[in-house]
Amino acid sequence: MSAASASRHPVQFEILARSPSTNARRGRVTTPHGSFDTPAFMPVATAATMKGLTPDQITATGAQIILNNAYHLMLRPGAERMKHFGGSHEFMRWNKPILTDSGGFQAWSMTEGTKISEEGVMFRSFVDGSKLMLSPERSIEVQNAIGADIIMAFDDCPPARMQVDAVSESTTDAATDAKLSRKRKSKVEEHHARLVDAIDRTSRWLARCVAAHRRPDEQGLFGIIQGGTDLALRRRCVDQICAFDLPGFAIGGVAVGESSQEIHRTVAEVAPWLPQDKPRYLMGVGYERDIVAGVRAGIDMFDCVLPTRNGRKGYAFTSHGPLRIRNAKHTISLEPIDAACDCLACAGGFSRGYLRHLFMADEMLGPTLLSIHNLRHFQRLMVDIRATIHDDAWSTLAQRWPVISASSNDASGMEDAVATES
Amino acid sequence: MSAASASRHPVQFEILARSPSTNARRGRVTTPHGSFDTPAFMPVATAATMKGLTPDQITATGAQIILNNAYHLMLRPGAERMKHFGGSHEFMRWNKPILTDSGGFQAWSMTEGTKISEEGVMFRSFVDGSKLMLSPERSIEVQNAIGADIIMAFDDCPPARMQVDAVSESTTDAATDAKLSRKRKSKVEEHHARLVDAIDRTSRWLARCVAAHRRPDEQGLFGIIQGGTDLALRRRCVDQICAFDLPGFAIGGVAVGESSQEIHRTVAEVAPWLPQDKPRYLMGVGYERDIVAGVRAGIDMFDCVLPTRNGRKGYAFTSHGPLRIRNAKHTISLEPIDAACDCLACAGGFSRGYLRHLFMADEMLGPTLLSIHNLRHFQRLMVDIRATIHDDAWSTLAQRWPVISASSNDASGMEDAVATES
Repeated sequence: MSAASASRHPVQFEILARSPSTNARRGRVTTPHGSFDTPAFMPVATAATMKGLTPDQITATGAQIILNNAYHLMLRPGAERMKHFGGSHEFMRWNKPILTDSGGFQAWSMTEGTKISEEGVMFRSFVDGSKLMLSPERSIEVQNAIGADIIMAFDDCPPARMQVDAVSESTTDAATDAKLSRKRKSKVEEHHARLVDAIDRTSRWLARCVAAHRRPDEQGLFGIIQGGTDLALRRRCVDQICAFDLPGFAIGGVAVGESSQEIHRTVAEVAPWLPQDKPRYLMGVGYERDIVAGVRAGIDMFDCVLPTRNGRKGYAFTSHGPLRIRNAKHTISLEPIDAACDCLACAGGFSRGYLRHLFMADEMLGPTLLSIHNLRHFQRLMVDIRATIHDDAWSTLAQRWPVISASSNDASGMEDAVATES
Repeated sequence: MSAASASRHPVQFEILARSPSTNARRGRVTTPHGSFDTPAFMPVATAATMKGLTPDQITATGAQIILNNAYHLMLRPGAERMKHFGGSHEFMRWNKPILTDSGGFQAWSMTEGTKISEEGVMFRSFVDGSKLMLSPERSIEVQNAIGADIIMAFDDCPPARMQVDAVSESTTDAATDAKLSRKRKSKVEEHHARLVDAIDRTSRWLARCVAAHRRPDEQGLFGIIQGGTDLALRRRCVDQICAFDLPGFAIGGVAVGESSQEIHRTVAEVAPWLPQDKPRYLMGVGYERDIVAGVRAGIDMFDCVLPTRNGRKGYAFTSHGPLRIRNAKHTISLEPIDAACDCLACAGGFSRGYLRHLFMADEMLGPTLLSIHNLRHFQRLMVDIRATIHDDAWSTLAQRWPVISASSNDASGMEDAVATES
């Protein structure tokens, strides 16, 4: 791709620093609604609202770009309505960068009986149960109406495991074991074939997305790499997708059921294969250690619903790990959630005891304050990561954030990351 | 009362202007946590939180003093816990004036099977069903622990009507009618006797409250006038209660089931009987026209849950009357709730269509933004009322606020004011 063609894109990327010992880069992405620093954490405002937070409160957490879910907005209020309101920036009164996903993942994961064909995905609306077709053309039409600065290709995102696990246990009977082994093998082959299909379809669908894109001067379209944890398939997908002249690329199909180790291994291999001069986005990730691993692999953008979803449910992130605010031990605590945090809740002097009271009394301010804290927690981590890339001091980063090195994110109930919230 | 005794009180009142054509006064109340302008509207932060609003957001609505419910806080987190946390100001991070009610009204209205005796009120906790006694001594002990700047006497607040209405319909049979008439008369007499009892008990309980008050230099105790809509009883109560040397007095037992006309008539008569040089507080009132009628009668302080309760449920106040945001007619509206309003929602550019979307999608930001708007609506009304007292221009006030002259507050579902919210 020539410099001339790069300059056409409404989304531009510049690298400001590189970490000598890792693949990490520090940079800046510029969009029609301003720029954001990378590596960036993008919090999720599913239905054009980030739960109880006003746009000013979102800004105060340090977020420079947020996500909207095209799937939710196409169903309610609807794509045409979004256009009527002047797009999501006007609708939700957020004048900074926005990214929308394509809706494919939600169409798959949020309803039963979804059917895939070369045309697209047939699914039932979670709002009124009506049958709808989401195709590459329709997804781009919806995303053009929403008007985000960065829009995502409509991809085929198969589950990480296709009921292979269901036949993986062994028995005491050799004949049964052999039968199960054949069944397992056949399932593995079936899953592999499905992944190959998904990759080639994703590539054909990307061509249709590019052709359907009506606002290429205002919205940057990112391609998505699929292929699960199979590196050969990932390579095949990278070769196909990165052949397109696009302003950015994403790694999709992670955090969909694999282990943290599998995510880290896959990302470490695949990220460096993506173009050096374009932003790289790891979709739906994740916990603090997953983000740090992604950054070290060369990822520039992350998104996750964890801060708001867990905040709503009474779980707070801290540099030492998660905290369940309803726990009786916080009843008379005068301490802030995290003494190192400068968020409205922590710096504002709200005690764990008060926050626990709000949750016990089912008061809205509890979810709001914990969401604000959690969002700021992730933004503080990103600030620290960006500084670390400059001085390459990863061990002192880990000292400031013990949660990164924790063997698990055991949160006595903290929920796993998923790429959507209702 | 001498000037020397007045200066002992931690709550002081000065009158800055009087309306020549009415009994309205413009003034300022000074407390240990700062002063507030009167006539004042005090929004309700029942459980030491005003629903989804942060203290900064409450301040931004223009509120200078807020209410806490002693009943809710004594049950959760508990009076001793409130003390442990340094009182409500520290607990909820609100450094301006706070007023607490005594808990008597809630003990009566929030549970079944409440029993009154000379000692106090026996009721069941709405949190865990345990049987509790709320006496004048316990109420003051709880309010001393919460630490509000203004605390309220523990009074006997009987219902406005004692099942009199239930026997008020007439039949076609003369004998039955006569029987019903006797029954009605006996019910009315019974109710009257109950009101007389309530007044004399309220007076005896006030003496016990004064004796039990352990922080008279930091918290001003207000007496409460009962007597329903019976002016002779109200007079009797004023004579008893205003004999106490207190920094302020309240009219209780209104907005408990009477008509708007009955409220206005009673307040117009009773308010001028209260000491001229002390703030007068009309408890649990109310709608815009009730507030204006109260101000003209000489009332200085009002409180009501209407702004937040209705906001949460999707009803917005406007100068032209209430608005149901879920109504389909707002679906594509680009208009703000009220073009005359300067609240975060209206001045921030959030359209009716967006707000409706938030309510349809059951998103927390909807209740938060509508509560912010409604709270600002009442504070804007108070600003205008205070200006009107200076220039005595009541007719132009009514032109700017058509809702004041509306024959009813018909909100196609707007709820009645009640003095508590859960």
